[in-house]
Amino acid sequence: MEPSLSQSDEAPRGRPVVRLRPKAEARAIRHGFPWVYADELVLDRRTQGLMPGALAVLEDAERRPLALVTVNPASKIVARVLDRDPAAEVDEAWLAARLSRALALRERLFDEPFYRLVHAEADGLPGVIIDRFGGAAVIQPNAAWAEMHLEALAAALRAVTGVTTIIKNGSGRARGLEGLAEETTVLSGGVAGPVPVPMNGAIYMADLTGGQKTGLFYDQRPNHAFAARLARGARVLDVFSHVGGFALAALAGGADHALAVDASAAALDLAGQGAAKMGMADRFATRQGDAFAALEALGAEGARFDLVVCDPPAFAPSKQALEAGLRAYERVARLAAPLVAPGGYLVLCSCSHAADLSAFRNACARGIGRGGRRAQLIHTGFAGSDHPMLPQLAESAYLKSLFFRLDG
Amino acid sequence: MEPSLSQSDEAPRGRPVVRLRPKAEARAIRHGFPWVYADELVLDRRTQGLMPGALAVLEDAERRPLALVTVNPASKIVARVLDRDPAAEVDEAWLAARLSRALALRERLFDEPFYRLVHAEADGLPGVIIDRFGGAAVIQPNAAWAEMHLEALAAALRAVTGVTTIIKNGSGRARGLEGLAEETTVLSGGVAGPVPVPMNGAIYMADLTGGQKTGLFYDQRPNHAFAARLARGARVLDVFSHVGGFALAALAGGADHALAVDASAAALDLAGQGAAKMGMADRFATRQGDAFAALEALGAEGARFDLVVCDPPAFAPSKQALEAGLRAYERVARLAAPLVAPGGYLVLCSCSHAADLSAFRNACARGIGRGGRRAQLIHTGFAGSDHPMLPQLAESAYLKSLFFRLDG
Repeated sequence: MEPSLSQSDEAPRGRPVVRLRPKAEARAIRHGFPWVYADELVLDRRTQGLMPGALAVLEDAERRPLALVTVNPASKIVARVLDRDPAAEVDEAWLAARLSRALALRERLFDEPFYRLVHAEADGLPGVIIDRFGGAAVIQPNAAWAEMHLEALAAALRAVTGVTTIIKNGSGRARGLEGLAEETTVLSGGVAGPVPVPMNGAIYMADLTGGQKTGLFYDQRPNHAFAARLARGARVLDVFSHVGGFALAALAGGADHALAVDASAAALDLAGQGAAKMGMADRFATRQGDAFAALEALGAEGARFDLVVCDPPAFAPSKQALEAGLRAYERVARLAAPLVAPGGYLVLCSCSHAADLSAFRNACARGIGRGGRRAQLIHTGFAGSDHPMLPQLAESAYLKSLFFRLDG
Repeated sequence: MEPSLSQSDEAPRGRPVVRLRPKAEARAIRHGFPWVYADELVLDRRTQGLMPGALAVLEDAERRPLALVTVNPASKIVARVLDRDPAAEVDEAWLAARLSRALALRERLFDEPFYRLVHAEADGLPGVIIDRFGGAAVIQPNAAWAEMHLEALAAALRAVTGVTTIIKNGSGRARGLEGLAEETTVLSGGVAGPVPVPMNGAIYMADLTGGQKTGLFYDQRPNHAFAARLARGARVLDVFSHVGGFALAALAGGADHALAVDASAAALDLAGQGAAKMGMADRFATRQGDAFAALEALGAEGARFDLVVCDPPAFAPSKQALEAGLRAYERVARLAAPLVAPGGYLVLCSCSHAADLSAFRNACARGIGRGGRRAQLIHTGFAGSDHPMLPQLAESAYLKSLFFRLDG
């Protein structure tokens, strides 16, 4: 059979071809943008009939191949770039190469094997999150292709890192957008209770199978560290504390005492276990309940702290929720500011994609002002470096931690 | 004499009164915004006749007092808030209170007395920069009021910090905008040669009377520290190195060797002195000349480094210079990216007010792409916490340091 050069549907490895619309911008993909949105792709019957997670060759409108992509016709992000080489084979060796490259960065950054090992697109594994806890790892396969290659991914993960326990965590909003079911299972090895995680001199207890997300939020590590530097001798309040995030770091940094507030009794119990392991249980207290109610109650009690941290869940997870979310951030700031002793510090965090740095900072400044205080902004922190970003997606950096010093 | 309540020109201490125009926004001032622009103030003959640096009471259009301000009819920023209390007296005690508050933050942040002690508006001293070098301090009085109160400021500085040597550095663009003359003098004590400054385990030699700005740039301290963490065993190139900023920090972090490039032979000489004091002269080399030419020459030589840092002067110091500035940043990135070994790190910095984070990041990403490389963004750093900002002015954060990891 004679090869027909004009017939570009004969893609490498007999793969299906998907094609950008004539007006879609191929340059972005060529320059490293990792996504194709539904309105940029020719969604003919053949493309719409592809299995979610199917591999395909992406071509521009002139039928020039651009990349190997994974397609999910059910998702707003209809294609994600897996490799610039349209002929790349996605097998255990390919996955191991990506994991090795991700591991090299973390081994340079951290002395101990506790970190986010894979942060999705920026680590070349679209939609895949892997957090490492020493000899255990938790995978969040938040894109259909990863779900399909999960066995090879787990095998590569064992081979590259030597972890023996691997958990698949199938919870969270991202999977819903991909049409994936919620499901958490142990893929290999076993877990006997919470895992102690050393970070910034503190010890956190991470529940790898029953906790929020992968059991611990590594992203705040540099911001915990910065708060700890402010905490020497301080009375500390940590609101939305989860398993003791800022509170335990502050104790490790020499805080006099710390009060952790969270709605989850289970999370606070893990925080208490961490404080006990640190030998600091006598300097640690918890208050279970609604954070806003707790802030109001502490205000009514006339409580004062030298360092107050509020690290709430995403109040503005989407553009639709932005206005209400910013009002919630402002309210947190307004309620927290009066609890800060003269010259003390207030740390306000947002993990909302939709609230950009400027909008979040303005909401905080308004809230502090309405709380009757003036402030200096002494530090702005983002997620730690085990959460790399593609420069093309950096606009939506989700985590912002603002460190204010309040008036005397 | 009967006091006339309607006669608000009888301001506290017999001070002149300046008044916002009817449409000007008094709320911003009430909420902590520190400046009044020329088009917001009633510029009658009396106000225009005020001495640059004169103190006055700022009123809103309804003649309600807002704050004590300093007025400079020659400046675009025609009034700067000194105190929310219109009756405050600006004397040595007032200055000492501001300095004490500034000192408390630095003493919490740093183990040794080497830091920016006063960062202008955010430290309650509009237009005033003070850098501390152990027992010496350099004042930049970049606003007319500070020039008028310089003697009291120096006395308060001696009393609060115990420094014995005080230098007035009257160079720089900001003074020109205020109509102040260039002039550098020793106000007290004496200086015998460059001062060794310990920072991040490195030693920098700061020329307090003849160097750029106050002799050393403290603002990059946390970014030097982050780069040092990436530098273990690395071959390092530091372009626009000044007195060895990133290069010496990298050597302290365990770099194999470092090459510093700068146009100033005097700055490179100080860098070499620093390396010698660290006992690392054998791992340090310099290349004097134009940075762009050096980048091109190194590219032609096929040189490769594991860590490349480019920390140029402000290419976009004003809005007019923004487009050209962004092109210059892109060019730096394009020339530097090919010099980075596979999997190595590229640090790109901007100290341009006019180029915001997003614009600068995009210029860098374009340049890296045009240099033939792909990148992860692993860290975004700003100026250190001894450079606090008012939240109201944070939009214009001048210093941005982006840490990229390039493809393998």
